[in-house]
Amino acid sequence: MSPARRSSATTGNLLYAQSGGVTAVINATAAGVIEAARARGVKVYAARNGILGALREDLIDTTKETASAIAALRHTPGGAFGSCRYKLKSLEDNRAEYERLIEVFRAHDIRWFLYNGGNDSADTALKLSRIGKTLGYDIRCIGVPKTVDNDLAVTDCCPGFGSVAKYTAISTLEASLDVASMAETSTKVFILEVMGRHAGWIAAAAGLAGEGPDAAPHIILFPENAFDEAAFLARVKATVERVGWCTVVASEGVRNAAGQFLAEAGTRDAFGHAQLGGVAPVLAALVKEKLGYKYHWAVPDYLQRSARHAASKVDADQAFAVGRAAVDYALAGMNAVMPVIVRSADAPYRWKIEPAPLAKIANREKKMPKSFITRDGFGITAAARRYLSPLIRGEAPLPYGKNGLPNYVRLKNTAVTARLPAFKP
Amino acid sequence: MSPARRSSATTGNLLYAQSGGVTAVINATAAGVIEAARARGVKVYAARNGILGALREDLIDTTKETASAIAALRHTPGGAFGSCRYKLKSLEDNRAEYERLIEVFRAHDIRWFLYNGGNDSADTALKLSRIGKTLGYDIRCIGVPKTVDNDLAVTDCCPGFGSVAKYTAISTLEASLDVASMAETSTKVFILEVMGRHAGWIAAAAGLAGEGPDAAPHIILFPENAFDEAAFLARVKATVERVGWCTVVASEGVRNAAGQFLAEAGTRDAFGHAQLGGVAPVLAALVKEKLGYKYHWAVPDYLQRSARHAASKVDADQAFAVGRAAVDYALAGMNAVMPVIVRSADAPYRWKIEPAPLAKIANREKKMPKSFITRDGFGITAAARRYLSPLIRGEAPLPYGKNGLPNYVRLKNTAVTARLPAFKP
Repeated sequence: MSPARRSSATTGNLLYAQSGGVTAVINATAAGVIEAARARGVKVYAARNGILGALREDLIDTTKETASAIAALRHTPGGAFGSCRYKLKSLEDNRAEYERLIEVFRAHDIRWFLYNGGNDSADTALKLSRIGKTLGYDIRCIGVPKTVDNDLAVTDCCPGFGSVAKYTAISTLEASLDVASMAETSTKVFILEVMGRHAGWIAAAAGLAGEGPDAAPHIILFPENAFDEAAFLARVKATVERVGWCTVVASEGVRNAAGQFLAEAGTRDAFGHAQLGGVAPVLAALVKEKLGYKYHWAVPDYLQRSARHAASKVDADQAFAVGRAAVDYALAGMNAVMPVIVRSADAPYRWKIEPAPLAKIANREKKMPKSFITRDGFGITAAARRYLSPLIRGEAPLPYGKNGLPNYVRLKNTAVTARLPAFKP
Repeated sequence: MSPARRSSATTGNLLYAQSGGVTAVINATAAGVIEAARARGVKVYAARNGILGALREDLIDTTKETASAIAALRHTPGGAFGSCRYKLKSLEDNRAEYERLIEVFRAHDIRWFLYNGGNDSADTALKLSRIGKTLGYDIRCIGVPKTVDNDLAVTDCCPGFGSVAKYTAISTLEASLDVASMAETSTKVFILEVMGRHAGWIAAAAGLAGEGPDAAPHIILFPENAFDEAAFLARVKATVERVGWCTVVASEGVRNAAGQFLAEAGTRDAFGHAQLGGVAPVLAALVKEKLGYKYHWAVPDYLQRSARHAASKVDADQAFAVGRAAVDYALAGMNAVMPVIVRSADAPYRWKIEPAPLAKIANREKKMPKSFITRDGFGITAAARRYLSPLIRGEAPLPYGKNGLPNYVRLKNTAVTARLPAFKP
């Protein structure tokens, strides 16, 4: 950093908040933030339950945590300070909330705000980075990337994705070994439903489990393609006849030609409501009805995004690195930026962290390239493998206790004494 | 072994077969069998797809596999030689199949038969152990325990169970950390459905994830108790109000007071069929309908029983040990026995392998003791923890490749040349 980029704000406190769906490694980012700030002598507050804690002046004093507790965040899944799904409205629509945030920042001498989340959070950080000047308060806002959806713009990949990708590839491989051994007299079709409402990144990662026409997964269903029932059933049938069994990985966001989620178009629960999050049972029923094969289906749901026990080392390292970089950028006086991951080589994989303007990231969505899906629509291409494969490499260290469970840390999360009147977001 | 117990059958080949649902560690048993037999200079054939391969004379020559491939079975899930769900009828009902088996044994000089499975397989091994004498063929039959259901009699626990128990406890812990961090604005109730049609062993293991009224899982639903909707909903509500969120672990075999599986009583698919394997979505719909809470549910299905990446070291060690002991018993001339796990101490946990008569195991089912379920029906007792806790201890070694995936082995599975006419089981 050149001295010219340094801000006058060299004193004050740093506020860190987690936002949106949590991941297996978002706390590694928190560890990166807190360890880097401690090394620079800067106090870190964390907002309890994301931006809501900042609005409510419900702040956590991270200086009350031991160095070993903070280090243990590197291997603890979930959001250690709480997260939230809460999108700030625009400045015009809800100026009061922005003013409140500045008020809270001022009351606790917060000069740096690090917001760890996805597209929406990048937008919030961007808005806050601008409002400080309007309201006459010197605040630097840094977005810190996080999302299992891998849909942030600019960054090559998103911390959180590599681990869910690894979990999904391992699970696909393992369950397929199971099905292969049972297929003669039992299950012939296994359907694994994975997260991904709008983009098939996680479903694509399942493709890393095997390569070649006979290797599982035999069929991947992406939200990028309209579901073609006839083509799907024909492929299932051909696979069972050739291989003896068939593993299907389906993105939760698979839609029919009319644009409806398959999960909603099919099953209704006991009360007649459309069932959500259940494309796997819908596909299974279809396979049973039309082809008569015995099936099993799995929906790991939260298990996939919290599976720190199967995390990727590359992902955990990147999550830590963006946290540390965010502090560097903030203390160097940068504003309205996000530390992003830049890939310099596929093989051997090389990456580095660089700052990118939040304006290029906020509210944008990175789609999976069409070139990642095979022409038949059911698999991933060599280009997809080149991109995905490095992201699941290495096993992130995880200490286990004598009880056979991972040693996950629970922080004290001591509240900072409030100084302002209550505020209801 | 005393020399007096030695059989005259000191030459000949050994046949090993896998039966029923496979596990994360059944191949560790195969490794134990093959390594022990190789050390004693005995050739091992494996039946392809369990007893079906024996009936069809579809045998695999394991001497074609390298020592390192056999060693890799110790960490490879699924059934390396194929398994099947096929129960031999009684001798009276289908004498032809027994005669065929003896014919195959005779054709390949098979003097020892090791059948790796659950209750049904113990029954088959027992029947075969008797028929040899009737048909004038000297064969020693050993049952080798395996089942994630943990329902075999005599043995303290079943190889395969400890690993699914560990996977379930870890997954419950991890997903609960996720839910805890999101609960304020998102999911308040998380429901994890686990295997266990008749007994709640796996559901009980989820209880190891936490202890105390506020720790997840907050509610466990066992097949041992009729589902009490009002009590369940009251407990969910009280937990959400007190803790902020609630993790429920439900055994797939939960039934209502009328004895119907809840999974079948509720959801119907797009074709109007009752959905199987879906107690979690039924419970989720109930929570939504009656309490209005946002929910998520997960059904890991085969992922749980194939999750070698999260296997218990105790379980993997026991799986290997029963395989080795089975060879020792067979070569010592024992017949109609099973190597079972005997617990000599809870803490520190100590176990050993001993032979037990198949007659005491075949077709029996070990229930979970009533003393393992708390009086309110929603949790596990200290006695359950004492029993379960040692079984998930230690992490079984697992080599990963540079590609970030476990190095699972795929055997050559070279067929032995058939010598008999074809037979259709």
